[in-house]
Amino acid sequence: MSAALLFTILNVLGTFVFGLSGAMVAIRRRFDLFGILVLAVATGVAGGIVRDLLLGAAPPEALRSTWPLAVASLAGLCAFLFTKQIERLNRPVMLLDAIGLGVFAVAGCRKALIYGIEPPGAVLLGVISAIGGGVLRDIMAAEVPRVLHEDVYALAAFAGAVAYAVCLWFAVPETTAAAGAVLLAVGLRLASVRFGWTLPRPPGPD
Amino acid sequence: MSAALLFTILNVLGTFVFGLSGAMVAIRRRFDLFGILVLAVATGVAGGIVRDLLLGAAPPEALRSTWPLAVASLAGLCAFLFTKQIERLNRPVMLLDAIGLGVFAVAGCRKALIYGIEPPGAVLLGVISAIGGGVLRDIMAAEVPRVLHEDVYALAAFAGAVAYAVCLWFAVPETTAAAGAVLLAVGLRLASVRFGWTLPRPPGPD
Amino acid sequence: MSAALLFTILNVLGTFVFGLSGAMVAIRRRFDLFGILVLAVATGVAGGIVRDLLLGAAPPEALRSTWPLAVASLAGLCAFLFTKQIERLNRPVMLLDAIGLGVFAVAGCRKALIYGIEPPGAVLLGVISAIGGGVLRDIMAAEVPRVLHEDVYALAAFAGAVAYAVCLWFAVPETTAAAGAVLLAVGLRLASVRFGWTLPRPPGPD
Repeated sequence: MSAALLFTILNVLGTFVFGLSGAMVAIRRRFDLFGILVLAVATGVAGGIVRDLLLGAAPPEALRSTWPLAVASLAGLCAFLFTKQIERLNRPVMLLDAIGLGVFAVAGCRKALIYGIEPPGAVLLGVISAIGGGVLRDIMAAEVPRVLHEDVYALAAFAGAVAYAVCLWFAVPETTAAAGAVLLAVGLRLASVRFGWTLPRPPGPD
Repeated sequence: MSAALLFTILNVLGTFVFGLSGAMVAIRRRFDLFGILVLAVATGVAGGIVRDLLLGAAPPEALRSTWPLAVASLAGLCAFLFTKQIERLNRPVMLLDAIGLGVFAVAGCRKALIYGIEPPGAVLLGVISAIGGGVLRDIMAAEVPRVLHEDVYALAAFAGAVAYAVCLWFAVPETTAAAGAVLLAVGLRLASVRFGWTLPRPPGPD
Repeated sequence: MSAALLFTILNVLGTFVFGLSGAMVAIRRRFDLFGILVLAVATGVAGGIVRDLLLGAAPPEALRSTWPLAVASLAGLCAFLFTKQIERLNRPVMLLDAIGLGVFAVAGCRKALIYGIEPPGAVLLGVISAIGGGVLRDIMAAEVPRVLHEDVYALAAFAGAVAYAVCLWFAVPETTAAAGAVLLAVGLRLASVRFGWTLPRPPGPD
């Protein structure tokens, strides 16, 4: 399988899963069907839209092609129709969310490097692509973005983007670098959930 | 009256009314005069700014011409000076807000089609133009955006944008298509308020 | 010292101080180390990123050069390591924050004028540059942006940007205009805190 095809498949999967996560937040808040679709689409495509805007690649891909919109809407519809089943699938959704996180971080970093951004900025852009959708989802639900207080979430995206940029720096072939970086980000995220890894916090008031 | 002149008049009216709605939220929260003006301007021009950014039409019209800024500021000032009178005008404001919603949805969709966006993306852009200002207003007031839980609000914008795109597809003259689509969106919004229409919701916890 | 060098130094200082303020909010909320860094970077560079996007100058400077990212991250790290000391420095931080506010307002207005924006739009852009980081910081922390209810904050940025644009209009030399406008904004902000200046508010419910 070529790298481009792999990235396309993973991108569609990531958009769908992020759409699902937006819809589930909307359902928990008892929004109506249209509110669910709006939050699914916002969560599924916001990261990519912000990435393209920051790269000066407007109009963003999410408006030029039809698939991101269609995939995210479909995710919202599925969440509405199969709410109970998806709630029972808590673990698989977490797994797919981790995959989306890793894919978007590496794909965002890759696109930024192609557009001639220096590695530190490209890593930042990868992280923004990966967490942008979730941040908008939580802001629209008037919650503190989970990425800010959930340990090893943004950090996993950061690690994936850094790994990809470093691999390319050392002339690792692109497909290998991408696959390894995605696996690193996904693995780090899953391991942190499984083993309850936390990052240092400032000393508390007590 | 030409279509361009009609759109200009409606655009000014929509900016003014959205500015009013932002200012009224700020007043309810007891912000000071400058906070009221900031929220009026943000609500009045944010939808158009996001639309222009997404189209790659930066700098956006709200920065290149002076009128959007002036009209939204004037709305904020009016709301500050005539708070009591406007509060009594609850119904007219709702009517004007519905007009703004319809106008911005159709105008946004139209501009996107002119910029060569495919119809599904153009409809999305119309909806973003129409609801963007209100979403920013509510996020800045740390509230869940009303559009997410108020039935038939984003849906009315969506219907207007779709109707416009479909009419053009079937070669309906532009002025007729625009007028019909705006009327559809406004009528749908007003009827939903009048008759208490709701959309399906996910089954509740009770 | 040339005007360009002065602006560069002040820009670095402003980014650092805004980064500090974002980190302190994250620490108060007990985010982990990475959440602190994310909020420091978001607060330090968001104003400039939004400014560059609105000017059509994508990719924004914060992605093309490395220093804004590095400086804001460093501020986050300092805040994490020296929390207690910074908390004791309450007054100096407020002073530096006022300097950042003034610098970003004038620098944003200046860049907009260079890009050919008319004075009213350039002033708006200066205000957005100056308050953008703080607004994003508060939105991400699920708080009402302080700029909306803190008297004479956005107004100080507004005064600085207007003063700069008016000075240039009357052919005042650029360095003099910039220095005077920054001093005006900083002085207005500090005086308002020192003397408890407030703006008129709408009549309350009682």
